[in-house]
Amino acid sequence: MDRLRCGILGATGIIGQRFVQTLTRHPWFDLVSLYSSRADGKRRYEGTVNWLLGPEVPSSVSDIVLSEYGSILTGRKDVDVVFSALPADTAQKLERKAARKGIHVISNSSCHRMDRDIPLMVPEVNGDHLKLLDGRKDKGILVTNPNCTTVGLVMPLDPIRDLIEGEVHVSSYQAISGAGYPGVASLDIYGNVVPFINGEEEKLIEEPGKIMGSLKGGSIRSSPLKVVPNCARVGVKDGHLVSFSARVEKGTDADDIIKLIGAKKGLKGLPSAPERPLVYRKERDRPRPDLDSFSGDPPGMVVSVGRVRVDDGMLRAFSLVNNTIRGGAGNAVLIAEQCKREGYL
Amino acid sequence: MDRLRCGILGATGIIGQRFVQTLTRHPWFDLVSLYSSRADGKRRYEGTVNWLLGPEVPSSVSDIVLSEYGSILTGRKDVDVVFSALPADTAQKLERKAARKGIHVISNSSCHRMDRDIPLMVPEVNGDHLKLLDGRKDKGILVTNPNCTTVGLVMPLDPIRDLIEGEVHVSSYQAISGAGYPGVASLDIYGNVVPFINGEEEKLIEEPGKIMGSLKGGSIRSSPLKVVPNCARVGVKDGHLVSFSARVEKGTDADDIIKLIGAKKGLKGLPSAPERPLVYRKERDRPRPDLDSFSGDPPGMVVSVGRVRVDDGMLRAFSLVNNTIRGGAGNAVLIAEQCKREGYL
Amino acid sequence: MDRLRCGILGATGIIGQRFVQTLTRHPWFDLVSLYSSRADGKRRYEGTVNWLLGPEVPSSVSDIVLSEYGSILTGRKDVDVVFSALPADTAQKLERKAARKGIHVISNSSCHRMDRDIPLMVPEVNGDHLKLLDGRKDKGILVTNPNCTTVGLVMPLDPIRDLIEGEVHVSSYQAISGAGYPGVASLDIYGNVVPFINGEEEKLIEEPGKIMGSLKGGSIRSSPLKVVPNCARVGVKDGHLVSFSARVEKGTDADDIIKLIGAKKGLKGLPSAPERPLVYRKERDRPRPDLDSFSGDPPGMVVSVGRVRVDDGMLRAFSLVNNTIRGGAGNAVLIAEQCKREGYL
Amino acid sequence: MDRLRCGILGATGIIGQRFVQTLTRHPWFDLVSLYSSRADGKRRYEGTVNWLLGPEVPSSVSDIVLSEYGSILTGRKDVDVVFSALPADTAQKLERKAARKGIHVISNSSCHRMDRDIPLMVPEVNGDHLKLLDGRKDKGILVTNPNCTTVGLVMPLDPIRDLIEGEVHVSSYQAISGAGYPGVASLDIYGNVVPFINGEEEKLIEEPGKIMGSLKGGSIRSSPLKVVPNCARVGVKDGHLVSFSARVEKGTDADDIIKLIGAKKGLKGLPSAPERPLVYRKERDRPRPDLDSFSGDPPGMVVSVGRVRVDDGMLRAFSLVNNTIRGGAGNAVLIAEQCKREGYL
Repeated sequence: MDRLRCGILGATGIIGQRFVQTLTRHPWFDLVSLYSSRADGKRRYEGTVNWLLGPEVPSSVSDIVLSEYGSILTGRKDVDVVFSALPADTAQKLERKAARKGIHVISNSSCHRMDRDIPLMVPEVNGDHLKLLDGRKDKGILVTNPNCTTVGLVMPLDPIRDLIEGEVHVSSYQAISGAGYPGVASLDIYGNVVPFINGEEEKLIEEPGKIMGSLKGGSIRSSPLKVVPNCARVGVKDGHLVSFSARVEKGTDADDIIKLIGAKKGLKGLPSAPERPLVYRKERDRPRPDLDSFSGDPPGMVVSVGRVRVDDGMLRAFSLVNNTIRGGAGNAVLIAEQCKREGYL
Repeated sequence: MDRLRCGILGATGIIGQRFVQTLTRHPWFDLVSLYSSRADGKRRYEGTVNWLLGPEVPSSVSDIVLSEYGSILTGRKDVDVVFSALPADTAQKLERKAARKGIHVISNSSCHRMDRDIPLMVPEVNGDHLKLLDGRKDKGILVTNPNCTTVGLVMPLDPIRDLIEGEVHVSSYQAISGAGYPGVASLDIYGNVVPFINGEEEKLIEEPGKIMGSLKGGSIRSSPLKVVPNCARVGVKDGHLVSFSARVEKGTDADDIIKLIGAKKGLKGLPSAPERPLVYRKERDRPRPDLDSFSGDPPGMVVSVGRVRVDDGMLRAFSLVNNTIRGGAGNAVLIAEQCKREGYL
Repeated sequence: MDRLRCGILGATGIIGQRFVQTLTRHPWFDLVSLYSSRADGKRRYEGTVNWLLGPEVPSSVSDIVLSEYGSILTGRKDVDVVFSALPADTAQKLERKAARKGIHVISNSSCHRMDRDIPLMVPEVNGDHLKLLDGRKDKGILVTNPNCTTVGLVMPLDPIRDLIEGEVHVSSYQAISGAGYPGVASLDIYGNVVPFINGEEEKLIEEPGKIMGSLKGGSIRSSPLKVVPNCARVGVKDGHLVSFSARVEKGTDADDIIKLIGAKKGLKGLPSAPERPLVYRKERDRPRPDLDSFSGDPPGMVVSVGRVRVDDGMLRAFSLVNNTIRGGAGNAVLIAEQCKREGYL
Repeated sequence: MDRLRCGILGATGIIGQRFVQTLTRHPWFDLVSLYSSRADGKRRYEGTVNWLLGPEVPSSVSDIVLSEYGSILTGRKDVDVVFSALPADTAQKLERKAARKGIHVISNSSCHRMDRDIPLMVPEVNGDHLKLLDGRKDKGILVTNPNCTTVGLVMPLDPIRDLIEGEVHVSSYQAISGAGYPGVASLDIYGNVVPFINGEEEKLIEEPGKIMGSLKGGSIRSSPLKVVPNCARVGVKDGHLVSFSARVEKGTDADDIIKLIGAKKGLKGLPSAPERPLVYRKERDRPRPDLDSFSGDPPGMVVSVGRVRVDDGMLRAFSLVNNTIRGGAGNAVLIAEQCKREGYL
């Protein structure tokens, strides 16, 4: 298989750092370019990035000189694919243009997620949605990654979707890494919970329906799934915990749900795909961010589910997603792998 | 008004300490006895208690020699009323016997809350339930205080109860002080969320219906209100945050809800009753434990509500209760005040 | 006594908020003006300030329209005295000019602390240094408040200064409120310690010598006290803990030290002066930020000391200062009270 | 090389879990027995241990049935070497007996560390102290691992020991994992610092002198190094930060110190020995627990040092040690590897 040259848009942010971490050790992609708003033609990645993922910036990228965002649209094409961790407004101006120029874009930005012609992917859930790309007009593809909490909700709902009746009530316990850096002020969150995350509930209402929708006649018909979300930030570094409850089909019991969740299969042959994307924790107090956020192989790609109960037809459960990996860079790289295998990259 | 001599059962625990804090400055009650499992006939309160509410044990109780639990049942009657913060199993053995002996018991223990002949009180919500006491056989009364999270849910639901249709979906973000001392191990909760609290969800299912039930023919007919709870512990010291959502009557909008909540009146003439027991926070990120846990006068007696939204007939909101004050000792003292004014004490 | 009209420069920051909290209930001063970099001629204090000290902005200031900094130098004199919580560079441009205009300035800013003609005050320690003001050329006085950690160190060293020999080795455990708002990013400090605080160690080296210096011939001769500081930020909201050790005079034992600390007297007749400014905690694990940060009356004005030991002539101890009250606004207001009584205001 | 069968005494505690984590992937040792106070003849490791190091107990040990402590002394010899994470009082009764029986004991317990005939080892610092074992009377060896904070102090002092003059003043910022499980109550440490750790300062006074002592005539002559420690617990999960300051030889500057620290070499050919045991961090705010606690290969075996400054002959610096790995199980396993290569195992 031909290796692909790749770059990262927004490489110094939290999601950008996770992209770096994933791509510096990737068997299919060569990370060659890092784009940042802090580029000035001279700044190297190390020395500019406030690296938060361990003691050292990976040595293979430490000396890369940061490129300005605009440079991706001008001059010769240095990369085959870019992973975007741009803020929505910058992404809006750049991503479609890059695709038009022939650069494939896998984006974690929110701005194009709900566009009718753009797939919003969780590879194990809606792989067939990539066919939306067949009708594209641009030379490069543009594919999007969902909101982090959306992934933590859609993953466990996927195998049980036929059993759900009516609304899914959701409350989130979201990690501070989800707000980027510097993000949440310590004085606001230390020993505290903040019951508001700008724009988050809107995403949780919109995105799951599209991801769980069905492809018909070249477009996606949204699933009727209705989410009723209350989102809050908690003092956790990594891992969004999601509480959800919903009415399920009469006669369904907890074991039915647990079996369906445990039976969900992983994608074969993709480096970032865990063998099983969902793990059911039978312990009474799991999933927990401290123990389950880096679950799976690669670490952080498994969504953990626990405390499934069904009483009087009402399902209650918790799930946990690593917000910057499965809910961010890791899922985006998995999308790229799927696109590559399917021939879109 | 005659002053009453009172005591505290379980005076060294967290709720016990809040009782001490409240009662050492109370205009109606004289705190004269402190009962503890750590009593040995010699130990003073200061020096035994691991006081967690400030730099100093209140001077008026620091020299009180701790009494053994059993002593309340033997010998002469030293107190008119006891406030109980006993663990359920100890309370089970002691509280009814004390009432039989003629000592009035206001209990924060869970063991008698659902007993048919015992009122489970939030004074502003179900004051009329005290009439259950009219038929009692014991010389002393036994009245109970709800679970902390129950109070945080029932208070905002009370004024809007007629608008709620179907289940109320609840997720809690509960403070570590709710687990007592030593309670939660720091290694379990530091930078973490634990999605399980033993027995909590069961209480949230049972208690609200009783509190919001109606007194008919000398007994309480439970409200049909159905709660679907998911409880979790977060790294917060004081203040349980409660996320709730429910279908509301067609045509209801957020302003209707907000008005009803803001209009809820306080009880007059009771020292622990805030002027308004419910406060609606219009800021977009409230209520927050750090800012709202000690709201009201006396501090911690107001339940704060925020983020009320109604979309497609579905209400979403957050409330916040100080778990050891309004959800514990403070509410229990307010019950005693109400009992006193109504002539039961 | 004539009441004085006062204002706060930098009223929306953390120290500014503590000034507001202190001055809205002050018996001598009337808080009439709030100056902020966020002023635009229309903005009110409530609605602009991100109030972090409780559920509500004090009602007496909520409607005050914020003034621009510059306005203090132009137009008519609206205030007799201003309390300054300005950043150093802004203070540099404004404070001396305000004094020249006849406005008295009590400043928490760092820029003039080491100026030869400006007193750097801890009222209980170096009240006589106010005499420096006798030689001033400006119509208004300019007096400064020390760095927060400096106060936590100087207060316990003051009564034992004659026993100290050689360097005082200091390590600090500093609260996040010391960095202002938004200040420290939660991703940097959550579950962490950051062993660096910009400029802090320099202040700890310079300031104690001036405060503990002696006034001779109209200027201050610095004390030879030498501090060897290592400063670190910890995940605490309020209260800087200070570890210190130093050689003490031969024959000194721990009791000698404890007695001297406990014997330190407060200033009489000043509203912000606690009866005793130093409290010795005999418990083996004190002082602790959670229990001792708001010690004293007014709360937060007492410095707590504990764990005094002397072995082989080497003293070890911990002290704790509320960094925004005794180490900030509270100490500054106490300075103003002292100036008022001494006739400088 | 012959593989050795090994066991862990106290396998369910925090240090025990780190031993399990290290030994289940060790190239020289086979982990075959797990001893626990919770053994009852039936309990398996998984299901008994409250595993805190990740989502799953390592599969190779999950089914091991726990053995009682006493069983190591009775019956046939199942293990060649045991790693002990016993509490001091249990270790006192067991460890010497086990050695007498011919089982080699590498112990993290504190009880025998200062015994004259027992080496107290940091392999890169005092490897020659193993010769103490040449004179042993027991069939098995007994070697001890230092206190966690001691390791964090001795490692950076070792290469600069000849430059130090007089006392080393130390303040620690210690992680909660150092107190075991359940250990520190969350109500005591959340958002707090506790300036007391039982027995810690005594160990910091005693142990460094022995480790840095010299072997003469079959016994160790302690180094004259004098430590003046103040120990505190902070809200950090892993990693003890150590602040230290001391007078250094005239003419020494920071670069001299930094060079000596960076030049310290690792041990060759031992699986748990990092290439360089000391890393100097040149960033201005390092070392930090969140970034540096798992530094090195194997992770957690490197001690990080930063902020070295020398002013007026006074050195100031910070170091960071992973308290359960380099300051616990990892160092103990490295000792075993060294013993094996030197022929003592």
